[in-house]
Amino acid sequence: MKTLILVRHGESAWNKLNLFTGWTDVDLTETGMQEAWEAGKLLVSEGYRPELCFTSYLKRAVKTLNQMLDAMDMDWLPVQKSWRLNEKSYGAIQGLNKADTAAKYGDEQVLLWRRSFDVQPPALDLHDERSPRMDPRYNEIPDNLIPLTESLKDTIERLMPYYRGTIMPAFENRNTLMVVAHGNSLRGIVKELKGMSNEEIIKFNLPTAVPYVFTFDEKMNLVEDKMLGDPDVIAAKMQSVANQAKPSANKLA
Amino acid sequence: MKTLILVRHGESAWNKLNLFTGWTDVDLTETGMQEAWEAGKLLVSEGYRPELCFTSYLKRAVKTLNQMLDAMDMDWLPVQKSWRLNEKSYGAIQGLNKADTAAKYGDEQVLLWRRSFDVQPPALDLHDERSPRMDPRYNEIPDNLIPLTESLKDTIERLMPYYRGTIMPAFENRNTLMVVAHGNSLRGIVKELKGMSNEEIIKFNLPTAVPYVFTFDEKMNLVEDKMLGDPDVIAAKMQSVANQAKPSANKLA
Repeated sequence: MKTLILVRHGESAWNKLNLFTGWTDVDLTETGMQEAWEAGKLLVSEGYRPELCFTSYLKRAVKTLNQMLDAMDMDWLPVQKSWRLNEKSYGAIQGLNKADTAAKYGDEQVLLWRRSFDVQPPALDLHDERSPRMDPRYNEIPDNLIPLTESLKDTIERLMPYYRGTIMPAFENRNTLMVVAHGNSLRGIVKELKGMSNEEIIKFNLPTAVPYVFTFDEKMNLVEDKMLGDPDVIAAKMQSVANQAKPSANKLA
Repeated sequence: MKTLILVRHGESAWNKLNLFTGWTDVDLTETGMQEAWEAGKLLVSEGYRPELCFTSYLKRAVKTLNQMLDAMDMDWLPVQKSWRLNEKSYGAIQGLNKADTAAKYGDEQVLLWRRSFDVQPPALDLHDERSPRMDPRYNEIPDNLIPLTESLKDTIERLMPYYRGTIMPAFENRNTLMVVAHGNSLRGIVKELKGMSNEEIIKFNLPTAVPYVFTFDEKMNLVEDKMLGDPDVIAAKMQSVANQAKPSANKLA
């Protein structure tokens, strides 16, 4: 039996402020660190022992993983980091408030930018200080691969070479792998694993810091997928993510 | 120019209790986390940017590195972990108080176990619950390579294949590397780099969480080595480490 565990990072400072984050390297909140700790403890209590972990180049994912490993007393586990697991780039709307943006451009437009499969938000200017092409961490990546904006389709396309070429092949000599990443990069993996349509995946909301466990048989056929933890908490977290683009969200926050 | 940065982990819970630690996986104290944060900030302010980092399988080193990377806003940097960077194994005296052990066996015997080049402390029993051969993290390592006790000479011998085969070759396509590890595994690297004799290295005490920077010319000749930070603080930290085996240390602690 092979097991793949997917975990979306805990609450970040900009989740809390309801801003579009994308490739902006925003830190976890204390709540986010606590969520990560609990996710690690939950994996231990359910008997899961990852052998190799993957995460993105963004600290909210890296620190969620580090914190989970510490809670699991497995700080020593090997970790591979890749920019291909980064969140979807939100282009020029990164740093803007989600509800304000909805009020300004209309719910429908913002829902397209957030939840359509192939509509990109407006692109960052090449010389925008927010451009990842100005960030030394991406120096080794050819410029044409570094996105200035992305649709979910684009995110999945740049994720797939890493998923197919690095993550899944690691099952050749490991039984349990864990990926700690972002709402949209993980959507790409879930879509692939569950054979979801474009319409299905855009309606699917991954809750923060909930281990989502996929089990495969010897031929790598998917046998089971389940989220660990209290179903009511999971449902509330999924609803909270779905609510973020509504103009009224600011008042609720 | 090539640069190698060595950092000994910050204060651990057993440093504070003055116990022999070795391969025991003891956590950092709050002071240790703070020391690591400051070491990271110091590297930034002095203009160092590591490109690849190495650490051990022990959480006091891994967490020192993670904390430093966070302070440097470089959580995304690649990290390779190896058991070969672990602390010297103190065998059967792991978990015993340094000063009590000195009072019981005599200062001279304990100084031999701690500071001779080739005298091993008493070995752990094969079935001792403290034996690393019972610990799943070392499952992939052949039993005969996993130490039940070590002299400094043994520690250096198991470290060298990693130093020569993995760390130094990484300079082929990187200019700055960082190793965050332990007092004795780092002694092995310092001895090699500075061509110290066996007698010289046993008298050398590496301070905790102080970046020790080695600079090389294009032919990898050592040009300069220096510790970063306040010289008085560094001297006090080195003296504190040297004092730990004295029977009076308990009263001072």
